[in-house]
Amino acid sequence: MKAAIITIGDEILIGQIVDTNSAFIAKSLDRIGVEIREMISISDDKKQILDTFSTLQDKVDIVMVTGGLGPTKDDVTKKTFCEYFNDELVVNPEVLAHVTQLIEGYFKRPITQMNKDQALVPSTCTILHNKVGTAPGMWMKKENTVFVSLPGVPYEMKYLVEEEIIPKIVREYKRPYIIHKTILTYGQGESLVAERIEQWENNLPDFIKLAYLPNPGRVRLRLTARGTDKEELEKAIEDNVQTLDAIIHDIIVGYEENETIETVIGKLLSKQNKAIATAESCTGGRIAALLSAVPGSSGYFKGGVVSYATEVKANVLGVPQNLIDQFSVVSAEVASAMALNVRSLLKTDYAIATTGNAGPSKGDSDAEIGTVFIALATPNGVITEEFNFGQPREKVIDRATVKSLEILQKEILKIV
Amino acid sequence: MKAAIITIGDEILIGQIVDTNSAFIAKSLDRIGVEIREMISISDDKKQILDTFSTLQDKVDIVMVTGGLGPTKDDVTKKTFCEYFNDELVVNPEVLAHVTQLIEGYFKRPITQMNKDQALVPSTCTILHNKVGTAPGMWMKKENTVFVSLPGVPYEMKYLVEEEIIPKIVREYKRPYIIHKTILTYGQGESLVAERIEQWENNLPDFIKLAYLPNPGRVRLRLTARGTDKEELEKAIEDNVQTLDAIIHDIIVGYEENETIETVIGKLLSKQNKAIATAESCTGGRIAALLSAVPGSSGYFKGGVVSYATEVKANVLGVPQNLIDQFSVVSAEVASAMALNVRSLLKTDYAIATTGNAGPSKGDSDAEIGTVFIALATPNGVITEEFNFGQPREKVIDRATVKSLEILQKEILKIV
Repeated sequence: MKAAIITIGDEILIGQIVDTNSAFIAKSLDRIGVEIREMISISDDKKQILDTFSTLQDKVDIVMVTGGLGPTKDDVTKKTFCEYFNDELVVNPEVLAHVTQLIEGYFKRPITQMNKDQALVPSTCTILHNKVGTAPGMWMKKENTVFVSLPGVPYEMKYLVEEEIIPKIVREYKRPYIIHKTILTYGQGESLVAERIEQWENNLPDFIKLAYLPNPGRVRLRLTARGTDKEELEKAIEDNVQTLDAIIHDIIVGYEENETIETVIGKLLSKQNKAIATAESCTGGRIAALLSAVPGSSGYFKGGVVSYATEVKANVLGVPQNLIDQFSVVSAEVASAMALNVRSLLKTDYAIATTGNAGPSKGDSDAEIGTVFIALATPNGVITEEFNFGQPREKVIDRATVKSLEILQKEILKIV
Repeated sequence: MKAAIITIGDEILIGQIVDTNSAFIAKSLDRIGVEIREMISISDDKKQILDTFSTLQDKVDIVMVTGGLGPTKDDVTKKTFCEYFNDELVVNPEVLAHVTQLIEGYFKRPITQMNKDQALVPSTCTILHNKVGTAPGMWMKKENTVFVSLPGVPYEMKYLVEEEIIPKIVREYKRPYIIHKTILTYGQGESLVAERIEQWENNLPDFIKLAYLPNPGRVRLRLTARGTDKEELEKAIEDNVQTLDAIIHDIIVGYEENETIETVIGKLLSKQNKAIATAESCTGGRIAALLSAVPGSSGYFKGGVVSYATEVKANVLGVPQNLIDQFSVVSAEVASAMALNVRSLLKTDYAIATTGNAGPSKGDSDAEIGTVFIALATPNGVITEEFNFGQPREKVIDRATVKSLEILQKEILKIV
C-alpha cells in the first residue's frame, strides 16, 4: 500500500513555519506497513491543489492532506475537494451539534457564523469525528485512490490519525510487514562510523536497508526490513544487530525507536536508583528541560540551578568568589565547583554543570567565544572537559547540551 | 522568479526526522523575492529523483536539492545528477585539497577513500565551495532551469545558501519585491481574532495577502505585498498595520519577522533595565532555556532554580514545609512562595514560577493531571493563576511555558 502526504499553506512555502505534521503522519503510516512515496507542500491555491491531486490519482492508494482547514481557511480546501469530487457542501448535523457544544458549552462563547461553517462538508464524504477540535476530518475515494483531509492544528491532526485513520486502514487494507530497528550512537561522526561497519553493511541481506541519520554529536543507524514473513524479518534484524553490536559496542547508547540519550539516561538512573542535579550557565536550563521532559523523570531528576549571572554562581551555588576572580567564570575550576556544589545542595549522586561563552559577544569572561567547560560530579569525584563549539550561539548551546548528556551517560555506564 | 525545493532521504519519508532544511531555504529565497512553488520530499532512489527533476524542468527557474550528499550517501545524488545532465564524475582538485586539509589538518585523522570520493563532482558543474564541511555544493543548468545540490547537514546547507547561493541569485536574476510584515498576537484563538479583524481584512488591497499562523496560545498574522514599486508596497503595509493596531492593540506583542515572546520580553526588560529570575517545577527549565537562548539575555536574565523535587522547593527555594503540607506542592500558595523566594534569592525585579502536574501519572500531589499554577512576583507583589492544560505531558509543558511568558509580558507592559 502506497501513500502520499500533501501539506497546504503559504506559511510553509515561505519558510515561516516548519512542517512537522508530515513527519507525524509518515511515522504513523510507516508503522503499519504503508510506504510513503512522497511528501509535497503547496500553496493554498485551488488550481495547484487540483493539479497535485491529479498527479497522485491512481499512483498511490491514499493521499493525506493537511492544512487549509482552520476556521479562516477551510473554504479553499473544502471547495477544492467538492470540485475534484464533483460534489457540493452540505451541513452535517452531527458536526454542527459538536461544534455548538464545544464553543457554547466548553468555551462559553456565543457561536459565530464562522464556527457554524465548519459543519459544511462535501455531501458524499465519510466524516472522521474530531473530538478535540471543530474542523472534522474527511475521507473520500475516487477510483483507486482515497483522499483524506485533516485539520492543520497538530493536536487535532494527531488525534484523527491515531483514533480514526490508522484503525480504518488496518481494518480495510492489506499491507506487508515493515520492521525498523534504530541503533543510537554517540560521539563519532558519520564517516568514521561508516568506515567501521563497512564490511558488516556489505553483508546485509537484500531485504534489509541501512540508513545513516547524522546529527551533531550523534548518528542514528536505521535498519529496515520489508517482506511477508514477519518472523523471518524479525530474526534477520535481530541477528544483524547482534553482529553490529560486537563491532561498535563502545558508541551504542540505545535501541528504541524513539530513544534519545535523555531517555537512556533516565532508564539507567532509575535502574541504579540514583538521582541527578544540574548547574547550568551557558546551556541556560536546556539540560534540565530535556531531562524533565521524560515521563517519570521525577523519580531521578531532582532539579538544578540556572546560574546565568556570575553572582548567582557565587550566591546560590556557593562558588568561591576568589576562584571566579582567579580563573574567570568560564574555567574548569568554576565548572567543577558548580557541579560539586549543586550535588551537595540538592543531595544527588550525580551533578552536571556547564559554563561557557555562547556568543555572539563576550560576557563576564575573556574566554574565546564558543568555549564551554563541562563538569560532572559523581560519588567518586569530579571530571571536567573543555570544548570549543565555534559559532553560532544556537550551535554552541546545542552541542554543549548534547555533549553534557553524552559525558553523563558514559560515566553512569561505567558503574552499571 | 520561481523555485522548487527537493529533499532526498528515506529518513524523512518514514517520519524519523522532520525536514527543517526546506523551511530555511524557503525563507532565504522568499526574502529576495523568489516565489517558492512547491517543496517535495522523496526517497533516495535514482528513478524517483529523475522523475521529479523532469516534472520541474522548465516549470521553475531554480530547483534546490538537499540531502543525499553525506559521505555515505553522495553516490546516489551525484550519479543521478550525472545521468540527468549526461555528464560524468571527475576529481575536483580544489575540493580534494580542501577535504584533505579539513580531515588531516583540522580533525587530525588519516584521510580515507570515502573522504576522497567527496571531491568527485560532475565535470560541467559549478562548484559552490563548502568551507564548513567536506561535501561541496553543485550548480548545474539545463535549458531554463538551474539545479543546485546541497549537503543535508543543516550548518553546511545554511552556509552555502547564505554565502554562495543567495549572492549568486541576487547578482544574476531579476526579481519582484516581496514584503512581509508579521504581527504577533498572544492570548486569543484564531477564530476570535478573525472575527475582530474581518472588516479590516475585507478592505485590504488586492496586492496584499493575509495569512493566519495559529499556535497554541498565539496567532501570527502575516501580511505579504508583492509588486514592482517598493515604496508603494511599504507604504500600503505600514498604513494597514496601523489600522490593524488600532483594532487589536490589546493582543499585539510584536512586529518583527523572527520575533517571539521571549525576544519581546528581552527588549522590554533591557529598556527598563530590569532583571528576571525563574523557579520552575513542571516546566523543568524550559522557561529559563527560552529566555537564555536570546542573544544578549545575560543583560537581564540572572538565572533560576529548577525545583523539580519537592525537597528542592523547600531546601533551595525556602518554600515553608508547612505550606507544602497544607496546600500540596501543586497549589497557588506554593507557586507564589516559589516566585517571591527566587526573586529575593537572585535579587531580581521579576520572577516567574511554575508548579503543576504534567502527567502522565500523578507525582507528589493529588492535583488533577494537567493542572498548573503560574506565579509572577513583581516589585508590587505577586499574582497567581491556575490552569488545566489537559494532556499529553508535552502539551502541558508547552502551554505552561507559553502562558508564563504571556503573563510576564503583559505585566511588564503595564509598567512601561
